[in-house]
Amino acid sequence: MSKNRLEAFSDGVLAIIITIMVLELKVPHGDQLSDLLPLWPVLLSYVLSFTFVGIYWNNHHHMLHAIQHVSGSVLLANLGLLFWLSLIPFATGWMGENHFAPVPVAFYGLLQLMAATFYWVLQQRCIATQGANSLLQQAIGNDWKGKISLLAFAVAVALSFIHTGLALAVYGGISVMWLIPDRRIERALRAARTG
Amino acid sequence: MSKNRLEAFSDGVLAIIITIMVLELKVPHGDQLSDLLPLWPVLLSYVLSFTFVGIYWNNHHHMLHAIQHVSGSVLLANLGLLFWLSLIPFATGWMGENHFAPVPVAFYGLLQLMAATFYWVLQQRCIATQGANSLLQQAIGNDWKGKISLLAFAVAVALSFIHTGLALAVYGGISVMWLIPDRRIERALRAARTG
Amino acid sequence: MSKNRLEAFSDGVLAIIITIMVLELKVPHGDQLSDLLPLWPVLLSYVLSFTFVGIYWNNHHHMLHAIQHVSGSVLLANLGLLFWLSLIPFATGWMGENHFAPVPVAFYGLLQLMAATFYWVLQQRCIATQGANSLLQQAIGNDWKGKISLLAFAVAVALSFIHTGLALAVYGGISVMWLIPDRRIERALRAARTG
Amino acid sequence: MSKNRLEAFSDGVLAIIITIMVLELKVPHGDQLSDLLPLWPVLLSYVLSFTFVGIYWNNHHHMLHAIQHVSGSVLLANLGLLFWLSLIPFATGWMGENHFAPVPVAFYGLLQLMAATFYWVLQQRCIATQGANSLLQQAIGNDWKGKISLLAFAVAVALSFIHTGLALAVYGGISVMWLIPDRRIERALRAARTG
Repeated sequence: MSKNRLEAFSDGVLAIIITIMVLELKVPHGDQLSDLLPLWPVLLSYVLSFTFVGIYWNNHHHMLHAIQHVSGSVLLANLGLLFWLSLIPFATGWMGENHFAPVPVAFYGLLQLMAATFYWVLQQRCIATQGANSLLQQAIGNDWKGKISLLAFAVAVALSFIHTGLALAVYGGISVMWLIPDRRIERALRAARTG
Repeated sequence: MSKNRLEAFSDGVLAIIITIMVLELKVPHGDQLSDLLPLWPVLLSYVLSFTFVGIYWNNHHHMLHAIQHVSGSVLLANLGLLFWLSLIPFATGWMGENHFAPVPVAFYGLLQLMAATFYWVLQQRCIATQGANSLLQQAIGNDWKGKISLLAFAVAVALSFIHTGLALAVYGGISVMWLIPDRRIERALRAARTG
Repeated sequence: MSKNRLEAFSDGVLAIIITIMVLELKVPHGDQLSDLLPLWPVLLSYVLSFTFVGIYWNNHHHMLHAIQHVSGSVLLANLGLLFWLSLIPFATGWMGENHFAPVPVAFYGLLQLMAATFYWVLQQRCIATQGANSLLQQAIGNDWKGKISLLAFAVAVALSFIHTGLALAVYGGISVMWLIPDRRIERALRAARTG
Repeated sequence: MSKNRLEAFSDGVLAIIITIMVLELKVPHGDQLSDLLPLWPVLLSYVLSFTFVGIYWNNHHHMLHAIQHVSGSVLLANLGLLFWLSLIPFATGWMGENHFAPVPVAFYGLLQLMAATFYWVLQQRCIATQGANSLLQQAIGNDWKGKISLLAFAVAVALSFIHTGLALAVYGGISVMWLIPDRRIERALRAARTG
């Protein structure tokens, strides 16, 4: 089964998720800079979520690049991932419009935790399509970034009720960790070709 | 005539349908968990429709994979299917915001019935492009899943006026039936290649 | 220059146009069938516009299939066509929410006339990329359907101020004329291959 | 690493950005031409932004056409460009609904300046993937259009506070400058093939 349409459909859904989030940035009625300032929590939430969805697209791109074909369970796991990601615009809007109140901040982290969990499931299903000596498995190694993210999101959900600033710092930290270009998969692919 | 753009356009429309449904999940004004709870019927409707659109995408993917070229009537039947599916977000919102009242639940089932009917028409037009000994025809066999779905949606529409819970159970049952990976087309394709 | 991305971008824009129109179908507050009935003009407008955008996608698909490469002026003409089509959801909503009042019905026809004009321009630019003996030119022949559509839209704009029902009948007639599968391009392509 | 999905994702995001802007054109309640007239600032803003996003898509298309593969930093720079472009619908709506008041007009120019800057960064990262004798570098030459645009947007932001008409004239001028078909990349590509 070809992976082209899985990529196309996922690209479409991710492109729409990343773009409709901006609809939460409601056009203010006044025409002064001071009318724009109250929007900063919504804008900050948007920046955070845009970054996360962008990272998901990037990693998804790399992961599917490393496999040759997709199975029925890959399609299902991918649909699950897209489901949780599709709720990100809602959580982003709720968090931003409530100026980072504890419950919305925790809810945001919980959704991210669900998305990260399904990403991990999808990754396992992708590895399974390659059998032993999976190229993808070699590429991600022990996947410390994935494991740290899951742990950090869980910790941040708890932190939300102590100090939301701490939770947001964790969210920001996770996104920065992933933004730093990661050459594991590229390197493994190149090694596989040359060796 | 190539089927690539038919796939691309359908992927685009399905990706948008599945994603704009989340816009019905309006961000609540309060910042407590109790402000989130009243959204459960809208969320549940969303989960149901997300699953159905995901299944349609999956099946559409497989069906087009099994044919070689598309005819004018395939394009037309596909447009008809997309039309009915494009009304799903509306029906989902109406059902969710009215806490699963009888008429919206029946209306939802009626739309699903129309979509399923057009899917069946599209399938027939696809089979027709392959002539006798159609690979797709062999793959779907007597298409009991498609027939059961049509019947079950019709029954659920009637059940909506007796007890909406029963109708929703039928909708859920149909979605679960399709979510269980179905290897008919994959198997037939493999058999066709090896035999 | 490859035509793949032109197709992909146009598919994307057309898929979004055809889908966001459904957002004008606002979910009614009541849960009875009687709450749904007042929506009929919006729904009818939606059906009409869905059909037109679907036809544009179909014809666009065929036209680009018949050419080999795209020029800068093709890209520009295509952008112009997409611009006018992007206003269709607005005109559809205005017409539907005002129960087919004369001015909105005329405005709708005017937009369709602009879109049809730009489609004609795009077609001419596509033919120009093929030089004399253009395959596309042979395929469309004297393009009587295109010419009739332009004329009919112009007439319908005027008719809107006499009786909107007549204008709507013309719009419906044009859409039906195009829905009937047209094998000109398919036939010309086949002839070109075999001859 | 293949550039196909980068193109597909960017096409998707650009197609959505260009299309959701039309949602700011709210359907008026009255059914007369006079009800449509107050929308002219929103419509004019829309035309301007549609043109700019169309130009970005066009240039993006050409730029990626001229390179062979993408690096991690290309993906990142592309995400940055899409981020700034995703804010264009917001700025367009704010400018249009406030009848081109100074602050929204300046804000619009500032966003365009950010987008143009990130486009320049992306272009540099694309050139870097080709090493010395970059085909893309030869194609764009000294990139006077890009440099003029950056300067002109900066000047227009300042002009907004003197006379918004001047700033808008600059925005319009930049868009016209880019709309005139530019054969630099096409010519360089052809020269590279034949020479």
